Amino acid sequence: MASFVTGPCGHEPAGATWIVACSGGPDSVALLAMAAILRERLGLAGLMAAHLDHGLRPESGAEAEAVGALCRTIGLPCLTARADVAELARERRTGIEDAGRQARQTFFADCLAGRDNAWVLTGHQLNDLAEDQLMRLARGAGWPALGGMAALDPARRLLRPLLLTPRSALTAFTAALGLPTMDDPSNADPAYLRNRVRHGLLPLVLAENPRALDAAARLWRQARLDAAYFDEILPVPVSDEGGAVRLPRTLLSGLHPALRARLYARALDALGPGQALAEGLAALEAAYARRDTGRVFQFPGGKTVRVGREGLVFGRDALSGPPRQNRKRH
Amino acid sequence: MASFVTGPCGHEPAGATWIVACSGGPDSVALLAMAAILRERLGLAGLMAAHLDHGLRPESGAEAEAVGALCRTIGLPCLTARADVAELARERRTGIEDAGRQARQTFFADCLAGRDNAWVLTGHQLNDLAEDQLMRLARGAGWPALGGMAALDPARRLLRPLLLTPRSALTAFTAALGLPTMDDPSNADPAYLRNRVRHGLLPLVLAENPRALDAAARLWRQARLDAAYFDEILPVPVSDEGGAVRLPRTLLSGLHPALRARLYARALDALGPGQALAEGLAALEAAYARRDTGRVFQFPGGKTVRVGREGLVFGRDALSGPPRQNRKRH
Repeated sequence: MASFVTGPCGHEPAGATWIVACSGGPDSVALLAMAAILRERLGLAGLMAAHLDHGLRPESGAEAEAVGALCRTIGLPCLTARADVAELARERRTGIEDAGRQARQTFFADCLAGRDNAWVLTGHQLNDLAEDQLMRLARGAGWPALGGMAALDPARRLLRPLLLTPRSALTAFTAALGLPTMDDPSNADPAYLRNRVRHGLLPLVLAENPRALDAAARLWRQARLDAAYFDEILPVPVSDEGGAVRLPRTLLSGLHPALRARLYARALDALGPGQALAEGLAALEAAYARRDTGRVFQFPGGKTVRVGREGLVFGRDALSGPPRQNRKRH
Repeated sequence: MASFVTGPCGHEPAGATWIVACSGGPDSVALLAMAAILRERLGLAGLMAAHLDHGLRPESGAEAEAVGALCRTIGLPCLTARADVAELARERRTGIEDAGRQARQTFFADCLAGRDNAWVLTGHQLNDLAEDQLMRLARGAGWPALGGMAALDPARRLLRPLLLTPRSALTAFTAALGLPTMDDPSNADPAYLRNRVRHGLLPLVLAENPRALDAAARLWRQARLDAAYFDEILPVPVSDEGGAVRLPRTLLSGLHPALRARLYARALDALGPGQALAEGLAALEAAYARRDTGRVFQFPGGKTVRVGREGLVFGRDALSGPPRQNRKRH
């Protein structure tokens, strides 16, 4: 069982402090119990749970209590906080799912702050991964992003050690140990995209192929390999003193078109946060190929790309002002 | 409109004879009409329709008549044949969908036989492509196979010029021209996987992203680019006089693991027909990496791979006997 952390994540647990994000559901309770059981064998320097009360349902306070009680039973500290996600969604004019994600990111960053070699572990498992792949296909992700979420996110210091473990194995594990788990009733709410995929799309896929979860794990592994391959062969874009990244035509014309769009994505990443969509990258490649000199493309995160005679110039939009606070976190 | 043939297919129509597979449905009727309109401009040497009566429904004979009548109206010859697909399925112990595919392949091969620079064109369009991607995801295809069916299949001399055109555009086209089209009632039958994807999965995806068809086209283009890239950088496996393909460890160890599994697929392809699944290729790569000397893997089409001390040896299974007839066709 110890290989569960090193398998998908490629993470060295010895000397690390693990902060297990625990909603109280079967996945995160299983992860917390596994970590507690393996703690010594893995040589962890520290282990604790972290629970964010999203404040979205009347019973959420009682759920936070239950997670705290579970942690006392297994002798682990529990970091807790309360957010008003509905209020946050109104303030930022985003959906509840987005606001919840933002609240969790802030909470996890607070949990990590000031701790040495600390990592947040989440209970995402193989069913979540299969759902993620379907959502990415529907939303138009390219390859290898289509393979799904990462098991190791060094920038956010996030680990997802159960990513290749099916949900059924985790439910069986918590049941065998007699661990109390809670079902979040909002997991059935069709207002959330994730639930529509979970209860609509994925069951249809599993009906066509009962081994679709194995297939999801295999696709994920292939995507990781391909991502590592592209990382290895693509040049590393470096920004100049003015903060711009230049990709000269002499470099680009020597690259296969399959590699060029991926290099554009890396150049944009080098400028800071903001996820470039496959659609925008394809349009940029078309403009490069047509030599649309002078054309300027906008990318998320206030980034621009100018098609010049000598190549492409990636920079920050002068109109977008100084980088906002969330740009620094990456 | 003329670019519709050269866009996705990369096919030169001048001097070619086009045999348009026409079921009588809106997609293939639109394709037939477009080809008839563009015939001179494209410089086609010949143009005709081809209709296979699958004999599955009482009205199929009348449908064949209707396709014949349409062809007479627009002044095109029509090749027709009748198959008993239900009987074929019983004989070969396959499903109706598989038997229909086999019957069409035989019919198309007969249509092509003895004709110079002749191609069969099918009416597969962008909705079909999006469905194909979903089916491939469910079935566990790897990348770039996940991108969907080819627009140009030189081995079967098959073109799918409408692959990036949405179904709605074709329905609008036949309606605008007042062309009579038929709806195959079996397109609603949930006994067929294709229909379950069409009426179950794809509508859910389109509900999440109304631009999911654009995304499907983009994913397809990326897969084509990546396939071309891998074709370009991977060595071409050559079989020796004994019919075996050898991949020495000295070659394999120098390749990134992302490339190795793809080279295995090419080596298997070099032995003849039989589609290797991503699952088998991943198991082979694991055995290679573990140096499981002496281990033998079976692959579809009577192929075997032996893990040797010096590398991998790809060959035909001695037990599978001489190649069957369907192996020659590829």
